[in-house]
Amino acid sequence: MSANQFSKDYLVVAQNASGRNMKVPLYRFKGAKPGPKVYIQSSIHGAEVQGNVVIYHLIQTLQKQPICGEITLVPNCNPVGTNIKAGEYTLGRFDPVNGTNWNRGYYFDPDNVDAFAKRVGPDESLTQIKARFRDNIKTQIDERLNSTWGLGLAQQLNLKLQQLAFDADIVIDLHNGPVSTRHIYVPEYAKAAASLFNIPHVILIPNTFAGALDEATFCPWWRLQDALSAKRGQTISLGVEAFTLEMGSQEVINFDEGRYDATSILSYLNARGCLQDANYQPDNIQRVAVYLKDYKILYTKQGGMVEYLARPGSRIKQGEPLAKVLNVDELENPRATDTILAPCDVIPILHFPSASVLSGTQLYKCFTHYFDLAEEA
Amino acid sequence: MSANQFSKDYLVVAQNASGRNMKVPLYRFKGAKPGPKVYIQSSIHGAEVQGNVVIYHLIQTLQKQPICGEITLVPNCNPVGTNIKAGEYTLGRFDPVNGTNWNRGYYFDPDNVDAFAKRVGPDESLTQIKARFRDNIKTQIDERLNSTWGLGLAQQLNLKLQQLAFDADIVIDLHNGPVSTRHIYVPEYAKAAASLFNIPHVILIPNTFAGALDEATFCPWWRLQDALSAKRGQTISLGVEAFTLEMGSQEVINFDEGRYDATSILSYLNARGCLQDANYQPDNIQRVAVYLKDYKILYTKQGGMVEYLARPGSRIKQGEPLAKVLNVDELENPRATDTILAPCDVIPILHFPSASVLSGTQLYKCFTHYFDLAEEA
Amino acid sequence: MSANQFSKDYLVVAQNASGRNMKVPLYRFKGAKPGPKVYIQSSIHGAEVQGNVVIYHLIQTLQKQPICGEITLVPNCNPVGTNIKAGEYTLGRFDPVNGTNWNRGYYFDPDNVDAFAKRVGPDESLTQIKARFRDNIKTQIDERLNSTWGLGLAQQLNLKLQQLAFDADIVIDLHNGPVSTRHIYVPEYAKAAASLFNIPHVILIPNTFAGALDEATFCPWWRLQDALSAKRGQTISLGVEAFTLEMGSQEVINFDEGRYDATSILSYLNARGCLQDANYQPDNIQRVAVYLKDYKILYTKQGGMVEYLARPGSRIKQGEPLAKVLNVDELENPRATDTILAPCDVIPILHFPSASVLSGTQLYKCFTHYFDLAEEA
Amino acid sequence: MSANQFSKDYLVVAQNASGRNMKVPLYRFKGAKPGPKVYIQSSIHGAEVQGNVVIYHLIQTLQKQPICGEITLVPNCNPVGTNIKAGEYTLGRFDPVNGTNWNRGYYFDPDNVDAFAKRVGPDESLTQIKARFRDNIKTQIDERLNSTWGLGLAQQLNLKLQQLAFDADIVIDLHNGPVSTRHIYVPEYAKAAASLFNIPHVILIPNTFAGALDEATFCPWWRLQDALSAKRGQTISLGVEAFTLEMGSQEVINFDEGRYDATSILSYLNARGCLQDANYQPDNIQRVAVYLKDYKILYTKQGGMVEYLARPGSRIKQGEPLAKVLNVDELENPRATDTILAPCDVIPILHFPSASVLSGTQLYKCFTHYFDLAEEA
Repeated sequence: MSANQFSKDYLVVAQNASGRNMKVPLYRFKGAKPGPKVYIQSSIHGAEVQGNVVIYHLIQTLQKQPICGEITLVPNCNPVGTNIKAGEYTLGRFDPVNGTNWNRGYYFDPDNVDAFAKRVGPDESLTQIKARFRDNIKTQIDERLNSTWGLGLAQQLNLKLQQLAFDADIVIDLHNGPVSTRHIYVPEYAKAAASLFNIPHVILIPNTFAGALDEATFCPWWRLQDALSAKRGQTISLGVEAFTLEMGSQEVINFDEGRYDATSILSYLNARGCLQDANYQPDNIQRVAVYLKDYKILYTKQGGMVEYLARPGSRIKQGEPLAKVLNVDELENPRATDTILAPCDVIPILHFPSASVLSGTQLYKCFTHYFDLAEEA
Repeated sequence: MSANQFSKDYLVVAQNASGRNMKVPLYRFKGAKPGPKVYIQSSIHGAEVQGNVVIYHLIQTLQKQPICGEITLVPNCNPVGTNIKAGEYTLGRFDPVNGTNWNRGYYFDPDNVDAFAKRVGPDESLTQIKARFRDNIKTQIDERLNSTWGLGLAQQLNLKLQQLAFDADIVIDLHNGPVSTRHIYVPEYAKAAASLFNIPHVILIPNTFAGALDEATFCPWWRLQDALSAKRGQTISLGVEAFTLEMGSQEVINFDEGRYDATSILSYLNARGCLQDANYQPDNIQRVAVYLKDYKILYTKQGGMVEYLARPGSRIKQGEPLAKVLNVDELENPRATDTILAPCDVIPILHFPSASVLSGTQLYKCFTHYFDLAEEA
Repeated sequence: MSANQFSKDYLVVAQNASGRNMKVPLYRFKGAKPGPKVYIQSSIHGAEVQGNVVIYHLIQTLQKQPICGEITLVPNCNPVGTNIKAGEYTLGRFDPVNGTNWNRGYYFDPDNVDAFAKRVGPDESLTQIKARFRDNIKTQIDERLNSTWGLGLAQQLNLKLQQLAFDADIVIDLHNGPVSTRHIYVPEYAKAAASLFNIPHVILIPNTFAGALDEATFCPWWRLQDALSAKRGQTISLGVEAFTLEMGSQEVINFDEGRYDATSILSYLNARGCLQDANYQPDNIQRVAVYLKDYKILYTKQGGMVEYLARPGSRIKQGEPLAKVLNVDELENPRATDTILAPCDVIPILHFPSASVLSGTQLYKCFTHYFDLAEEA
Repeated sequence: MSANQFSKDYLVVAQNASGRNMKVPLYRFKGAKPGPKVYIQSSIHGAEVQGNVVIYHLIQTLQKQPICGEITLVPNCNPVGTNIKAGEYTLGRFDPVNGTNWNRGYYFDPDNVDAFAKRVGPDESLTQIKARFRDNIKTQIDERLNSTWGLGLAQQLNLKLQQLAFDADIVIDLHNGPVSTRHIYVPEYAKAAASLFNIPHVILIPNTFAGALDEATFCPWWRLQDALSAKRGQTISLGVEAFTLEMGSQEVINFDEGRYDATSILSYLNARGCLQDANYQPDNIQRVAVYLKDYKILYTKQGGMVEYLARPGSRIKQGEPLAKVLNVDELENPRATDTILAPCDVIPILHFPSASVLSGTQLYKCFTHYFDLAEEA
């Protein structure tokens, strides 16, 4: 029998053109014992729906498994994105009105962190600092949400979610690639955590901000950690981690795969002390890592129709074929097809989901200069 | 060494908003010996690109294999549809301006056929009749193309292609389903032809017109045949056949699969006397058929996120699961998932390509009351 | 003080990809005295929003003005269409998944009407016949809505609305054109009604069905009337009228214009005995009419960028310019611009809303062979 | 008789999914006398087509009017954007595949400018510096265009145009707003130029880079100027100016308005010595200016249907109504409409082009804290 308290709530994140509220379900489990606060959301990109299945499986488990601390789960966190169709597919990666990526409007202001760090008293405990820092950031976000001139839809949506997420010690943002193998974004300072998930491909990211939720979580904490460490002359860890998990391809759900990914997340949470008397362990798999600068996009030079020859997750040597392009105007001569070769040794992680490409299309995203995570660590 | 003459030409089918011509390549092979005229086009639906690969393989073969008669191949026959992107996918099934299906604007007027049949002289040979009928139809199409008030883009495109296609004795229109297994539409009067392709699923269609190229080809010839047979009191065959081949899933090309489908088409063409001293034979596979009325669309009653449990081409018994729907608002209770069951014994042929569906979505198209083509014949 | 009873209710017409109900508000006024039943809906095409403002003004009036009978008002009757954006505009004319026009899925089966007419007893009163016919049609619609294999979204939406609309004696469907002047579609048998609205352009439509709500209303009643008239040897009128009002341009609302159109509708309703002691009269304006066959679409032959020279509602003589097309590739020579001339005397009623056109674009819809409605009648 | 040399050329900027080149026309006039180099492009945002008409009128003039120096005119410079339709409108503001704004991928690297400035010799003339700087930047752009991993489509397109534009002393980028009055973006250091155009609303922009062509032009020159001035201890002007002109509403062309804007540009060019013996003078109109920080976006807090009450270009006092929102669910009560008021004194410059808005929509862009340009200067 679970000692967890459960509650369900809804957060209004937008209003549609009929003037109706668009809301996001919040599932919350609170353990009888203290422990970390966890925040997990899925589908900020509307076509990346598999995270909803992962959350379904997590909820099935959390209805039985006693936890320490709190876990908030937010499936389908972008009801606008999920519900914009263009043809049979979901136009869910950006706001269809203005092209704004739904995962680029979170808040981070390094100057504000620096000012906060400067004001930290010499005797303040880490617990006090963390609580005050959370208040500080949430006040900043509130001000933005309530500004006279308003905010764009994507940014409003992001900030309302961030209000919830910034309370957490652990933030997990569930995504999918176009046609993709499993991979995870991990901040460099939390590299050790990468081995706690069952995810074979790891991207280590520096302390820079491009607007995404994981960055908006770890950038302020990381920066604060660094400032406090410098100020106090010792290595200070504030114990907050944030990850973006990419669990396969968009536009697809699969319940069996979802159970596997839920177990992977439970292994991590167990290692972080979120579960009581649980037995979830990471699998003994090889994990390959790259630094973000070595995670490369290969763009097409030509337009045409493409067969993707290299399977995501496979290892491709320099000069081996990645894709074959058909040129419909030259079918009777040698220019009928064109082969695109790997510019160096790569592991393709994802590829474009349509055979029809213009020049300048993101054909593949690839690991280059990758290394075994275990050996590196 | 091939005795075929080869030529390549371009047909202007539209002008874009920059005022530029959009054109379609025409590849033509003419044999040294007489024989049927063949017309093969692909990608009238812009996202259904695999037919272009099939035409590529056919052209490779036809550069060596001597033919009897003529073969015209028209890949990427809808350059508008192929080049409208919405998100990463191709919005190629209908004109993005007005929703018109690109495969519904061909010409057929039963009254004109009846009037023509009435005017056929008692001594006219079938060859004469066919030639005069072709002229008649092409004149009708010309008039429409040149009308004072003009025509919609899809219809213009269709009629310009039909001008070419109506010259042929054999018309093959290469399509793909959303996520689909191989299937073919065959007019009932040409049922025997279905066994000449390597396609396991056959839809037998009656003499009714909904605007597609295959119908626009066989409807007038079939109707004329029937009228002449009645008039002359004998069964008359005018020897024209038309097929829509659906060769797997849209948004994907695959060169190996394309070679297989090219061989399948060559087997049919060989049986029809289009190839000289060739050895292409249909495979000995089971072929399952339905009448069009038994090719059913299963629409969703609910909205949600769907796992497609039934693989296209598999046999599903009544009451077995086809799909499982996730309901993001009910994840903690039994309404979290909903299973959609087969309403009768079915072979799902294709399913919707996105996990995200509204109510009223074409979830599956299914064979019901199917039968073995060989046993029926 | 109004004696009208008021109620507000919601009709679920669809579920979105989050599994949530999409609903339509139903505003109902019931008079103290008997009288006709009226059904008015707006925005079945999602970008045609001005009808919602007209309904707003009607509701303001009906809160004070006593009525006879009942009036049901259904604004924003297609919440799917209104909420699909593609760029800044609303993609509301067709289902973005499959291109289905949202106003083509209503039910009409002439065979069913004929069978019903055959079963009408010699002594049945018109009131009895009307009641039984309504039951019959609504049962037919129910069967379709509840069929095992389901229905497409647009058709589901249409049939759910038609269930409500078929109870009414008067059905008004509020639309807008692209860039448009006021016009109204009136069934030929109800031509006299055209003079009761303040709408200067009238299209008289025959008893043929293309799927729209007005047709789905008057076609069965008209056919039944004709059958009963033949059966009983006398002219029988069942007193049901249906209209499509097009009130200016899509993507725009204007409260002042909406008040004018509301007054126009109130004038008609007053003439039909729907209002108690009211003083609404049609304006004394010229009304120009055409038969549907003379309401012509002018398609572009070329692609390019267009200035619309002819204002909707103006009178253009044969040979006068309608539009001027810029050709960006020929700016230094006489082909830089091209003028499109009226092929005969026309009144342009609406034009395409974008300057950028492909070949085959519906540039203008025009009255030709138009006549003064008063003189004709 | 004009002494200008004329040439027309084409630049390939992309390949479409059919593998075909998409190209941009280059119109070039070269005067008999020396003078500034001018580069004018239009329609980088595909729906903003009026600039093409302005270029048409400029070309008509330049065929007769002798110039000094060179003028390159590039209409319809984004053939991808102009040709993506979604519904009747043009989805031309961003790449439909990934949401990238077509006007954000130009090149500017402040570190490169600083390094260049450091290497400038003490004796180098401004002419030599300018020539070497152009070579330097164009080499940088070349490297990016030819990188192994490629570039995204929008960036490729931008850089190919920038290769041409960076040769010029005067760069004019012709845009339109959604529903908009005339306005112009002017770099603060070139403020005096604002009075040379017939444009009543002026936005003064600082030396910061967000990716647009005007910024990509003036930022490097401005930064270089500042560095050289510091280095040489004197105010150095390199004489390069760049402007973004917004000439009314998107999706519309108007030849008369285009002639007015062409004349406005000719007035500016005449003042800069580009025309020989010409008589073009700016009109004596009031010009109102703001600093970029005071050019504010007003976002909607609610969703609904909007009447835009404030006309672009009008002066609205704090608290006066800007827009009225209809709420279809509350038509019978006081919440039926909601009025959005000006948060301070504003001149609305443009508003959203559709009546249907979600929460977080850019309703208006407004001048606040505006001032008379003449008085300020």
